[in-house]
Amino acid sequence: MIDSKLNELLDRFEHGDTRALARLITLVENRAAEVSTVMERIYAKTGRAYIIGVTGAPGAGKSTLVNQFIVKYRAQGKIVAVLAIDPSSPFSGGAVLGDRIRMTDHYRDTGVYIRSLSTRGHHGGLSRAAREIVKLLDAFGYGVIIIETVGVGQTELSVMDLANTTVVVTVPEGGDGVQVMKAGLNEIADLFVVNKADRDGADRIKAELELNVHLRPSEGWRPPVLLTQASTGVGIDGLITAIKRHEEYRHEHRDPAREREQRAHEFAEVLTIEMEERTARALKNGATSAQAVMNEVRQGVLNPYSAARRIIEDRRAVAELLGQTDAAREAE
Amino acid sequence: MIDSKLNELLDRFEHGDTRALARLITLVENRAAEVSTVMERIYAKTGRAYIIGVTGAPGAGKSTLVNQFIVKYRAQGKIVAVLAIDPSSPFSGGAVLGDRIRMTDHYRDTGVYIRSLSTRGHHGGLSRAAREIVKLLDAFGYGVIIIETVGVGQTELSVMDLANTTVVVTVPEGGDGVQVMKAGLNEIADLFVVNKADRDGADRIKAELELNVHLRPSEGWRPPVLLTQASTGVGIDGLITAIKRHEEYRHEHRDPAREREQRAHEFAEVLTIEMEERTARALKNGATSAQAVMNEVRQGVLNPYSAARRIIEDRRAVAELLGQTDAAREAE
Repeated sequence: MIDSKLNELLDRFEHGDTRALARLITLVENRAAEVSTVMERIYAKTGRAYIIGVTGAPGAGKSTLVNQFIVKYRAQGKIVAVLAIDPSSPFSGGAVLGDRIRMTDHYRDTGVYIRSLSTRGHHGGLSRAAREIVKLLDAFGYGVIIIETVGVGQTELSVMDLANTTVVVTVPEGGDGVQVMKAGLNEIADLFVVNKADRDGADRIKAELELNVHLRPSEGWRPPVLLTQASTGVGIDGLITAIKRHEEYRHEHRDPAREREQRAHEFAEVLTIEMEERTARALKNGATSAQAVMNEVRQGVLNPYSAARRIIEDRRAVAELLGQTDAAREAE
Repeated sequence: MIDSKLNELLDRFEHGDTRALARLITLVENRAAEVSTVMERIYAKTGRAYIIGVTGAPGAGKSTLVNQFIVKYRAQGKIVAVLAIDPSSPFSGGAVLGDRIRMTDHYRDTGVYIRSLSTRGHHGGLSRAAREIVKLLDAFGYGVIIIETVGVGQTELSVMDLANTTVVVTVPEGGDGVQVMKAGLNEIADLFVVNKADRDGADRIKAELELNVHLRPSEGWRPPVLLTQASTGVGIDGLITAIKRHEEYRHEHRDPAREREQRAHEFAEVLTIEMEERTARALKNGATSAQAVMNEVRQGVLNPYSAARRIIEDRRAVAELLGQTDAAREAE
């Protein structure tokens, strides 16, 4: 993309054009070379949204719950964005028709933005993309951002790191409490919800989860366990209040040293990803200095590990792969 | 680790010491700096094992099936390794006691090696670790390597790229066929298994899966759908035969051009990961040339994207992060 076009897109984004937002999200999804420039430009405007993660097994009623969140936060006058990273979510198009029709309620509301992120074809890049899309939504001005993801799988779990409050949704059925523990969801939960609480066993799973919480070391936030029936709205107000309470708790327990470390951590991640992506793009575009080595690998006469070492120790090759500018080269 | 110790470990590995194998796998799991050296040393011995992927939802009976595979391949005189990447697998320690006891049958058999790889704490690194562990098992001499993983989640799915034959396990219950399609498992399957085939609905899901296969473009391998009852052994011989047939098909349809591209692809992956890991390690160890920028990020006065750009364009900083040797520097 030419700089002037990108600038125009960013201008439109800053003036609240949701189509510009959508295009920028697509750039992030496609891992375009412009992502870094986009992030530099919008970064100062991030940090204002409250980010809620909703996770749990397929069929737990996550999407219905998210639907209720939208209604409640809209009633509070907040504008809401949903990022659905879940193959079975109606938001991401994987659901039965009934669900999807229900969701279209919100499509007419300009205060609601819904975007799905496919889990396919994102080998390793999903959590990066999710983080940057959340930044875009945040900078755009959404007050509440809800990330919905199925609570299985490493990447899907790591996406929850982005949330300020993580809600783990369970149902009374067959050993769901045990599944939650197994999948490590209990470790990331700030709040537990037992949805479909009119069914048998709701109290039992609630007790199980509470016992688990009780067995934790006593300092810090203790995740409450709430009963809801998302489809009828029972328990939703209590859930919204509990989220608010967690938000306040976080605010009261702000730890500047920890925040500095989080920033350093994010930087390390951005730096390594940026190096990786620049290198991958340069190789794809036929970086000349790596060709000889790459051909040996292709023929099977050089193993990829020795090849990588050879490239990394060749400063000229690295400079080309990372796209270091001539200015930087001359300054050397 | 000192070079001489690593060398001794590699010598023991090459002499068939499974404890050395276990230690090398641990190095890979921990993303130790030595991984690259280990891979360079063992790489020439890889490429001989046949790698079978077994995936499907929790409760589909994957582990029981893997158990049957072990028995059958052992009876053929092959030595077998299992890499379990599945929080609910008895191999990885997440299962009910009954399952686990059954698995201990094999612990006395030196021709069987079982290792689990935790999905936790591996943000982004799981598929790399899995690939390298498979290489170690391969180089060690295991003739059959079975990778077991729960078929949900991006990373878990991508691990199946390592398999020569991917077996997708389903059960007759509630819409499991639909779940398979949703999760994209149908796209990676070389063979479908409907396990617990004595239950109602086995024929229906078989027909569903066969229809799905039938609707594919007609060239290439067509995944058969097999009925099994892993717990009693029904259908296992047919399954082993089907895997053999797929192996032969792959052999007959070898495509040297495609193999060259796979090698180039693996090289690109190894190179970018190696750059990323060297950088992450250098930052962790307090790389001096990045400190000033990192402090600005910590204080919140510089955004991580601009910071990353600054580091990447600084050749001295990059040289330090990548640990480029003095020799390489002097050659410049």
